[in-house]
Amino acid sequence: MKPPIGRDTKLCMSLSGRPGNAGSRLHNRLYELLDLDYIYKSFSTTDLPAAIGGVRALGIRGCAISMPFKEAVIPLIDRLEPSAQAIESVNTIVNEGGVLVGHNTDYIAARSLLARREIDPATPFLLRGSGGMARAVVAALRDSGFTDGTIVARNEEAGRILADEYGYRWRPDMPDQGGLLLVNVTPLGMEGPDSTALAFPETLIGACAIAFDVVAQPPETPFLRAARASGKTVISGAEVIVLQAIEQFVLYTGIRPSPAQIREAVLFAHGTTTADALALSAD
Amino acid sequence: MKPPIGRDTKLCMSLSGRPGNAGSRLHNRLYELLDLDYIYKSFSTTDLPAAIGGVRALGIRGCAISMPFKEAVIPLIDRLEPSAQAIESVNTIVNEGGVLVGHNTDYIAARSLLARREIDPATPFLLRGSGGMARAVVAALRDSGFTDGTIVARNEEAGRILADEYGYRWRPDMPDQGGLLLVNVTPLGMEGPDSTALAFPETLIGACAIAFDVVAQPPETPFLRAARASGKTVISGAEVIVLQAIEQFVLYTGIRPSPAQIREAVLFAHGTTTADALALSAD
Repeated sequence: MKPPIGRDTKLCMSLSGRPGNAGSRLHNRLYELLDLDYIYKSFSTTDLPAAIGGVRALGIRGCAISMPFKEAVIPLIDRLEPSAQAIESVNTIVNEGGVLVGHNTDYIAARSLLARREIDPATPFLLRGSGGMARAVVAALRDSGFTDGTIVARNEEAGRILADEYGYRWRPDMPDQGGLLLVNVTPLGMEGPDSTALAFPETLIGACAIAFDVVAQPPETPFLRAARASGKTVISGAEVIVLQAIEQFVLYTGIRPSPAQIREAVLFAHGTTTADALALSAD
Repeated sequence: MKPPIGRDTKLCMSLSGRPGNAGSRLHNRLYELLDLDYIYKSFSTTDLPAAIGGVRALGIRGCAISMPFKEAVIPLIDRLEPSAQAIESVNTIVNEGGVLVGHNTDYIAARSLLARREIDPATPFLLRGSGGMARAVVAALRDSGFTDGTIVARNEEAGRILADEYGYRWRPDMPDQGGLLLVNVTPLGMEGPDSTALAFPETLIGACAIAFDVVAQPPETPFLRAARASGKTVISGAEVIVLQAIEQFVLYTGIRPSPAQIREAVLFAHGTTTADALALSAD
């Protein structure tokens, strides 16, 4: 049984502009399932330097960093691991005895999912988007050996910078090409005003090799639904969000939960549709 | 039922040089009994300014302050309530929407216990000790209307300063006088090397009016045992430590637990002997 909270209990937390509850529920459930003397709670702040100073001074074991703090946190911590260095973006801080180390588990999750699906890096990819998460996925693609890539972004400046930095092409509109790894890193298809938008034209989806959507809510976007209907291999945003959280859990606790434990915690934190969207049997 | 930890859960905490578990157990049990969306955890720190900055920036609702931080914390917070102002010592910080307010619930507990026992303030008191807690109790005695008081302290400088500040006498040795309110604020009788020491001579105890010991562990010291054996009214350190924690709980949550709830939480946090030492039926 999980011991009562006390002086030896480790606190992990998240910092974001709009904190949610899924992270707290996922981590706390895993602590229960694994009898770990940890608690997890989400926070927001209007004073990032003082909040990070508090993480260090209070010995808070780990801190997930979400929008809008992923870049601003860099000068406040002590060291960057390669995952965060590669994209100059931190989504995870691990407090190693007062030394704050920055990681990026979005990057780790993207690399891991590309490897698990055994996607041939010779596959040309078409990635839509140019924000912070796009950067994590493009870096993961490059570091996974993908050499032929195109960034489609309406924001020409951001798209060109991203493409140039990682050695890919930028273009403003969709090509007409089959056999692509299609990657959506825009809000198209996300719950809200863009929920019915299709991130790629139906003809491209029908002719693609693999469909990868970073949107996690809903777990099945119009893009992924269309890809599945055509019998395509898919990587879902639900997998990315869960896997990046599990990588945080492993960094904080040193323990990797089993697929069954992850499924139970995801059911508790995100509900059935997300749990069903996970390809946990592939673990 | 207490909801799962999430973004709306309030965190309360303690900061001390040697954190214990009793505070976490007491507060967390009361949260459970009262279905409050709070958690409590003890911390230590080697960087007090950054820790207090973190309390403010993370919106941590309350923070108990123990040795050795009770004076050092004063320049780091925003406002002192009279309880802390009176003794220039803070044992409780309440975060009022980013404004850190200092209280001293040791002082509040001492005043409250003197009032509950309906001790006539014309009773002359003899208080042994000259440290920070002695200051809280002397201030409580003065503010409760006690005019005739003697401080016994081997440390002449500290004893004289304390006595002069509050309008009492200092003396280096025990008087020979009956009918006193005897107050021990030294470690004599405390678990450890001083556990068998009697804070006052047996003749003084046998002739006293009331016996008040601030030592909380064990709940019955040799001093209090001797006083009870002589049929004296006693105030125990167990009552002080529990009452000051309950006052913190009230400041953080706005809710005053019932005597039965306090008894159950104290049983869980401190065990049977402390719970039995409480005069909860007097509430």
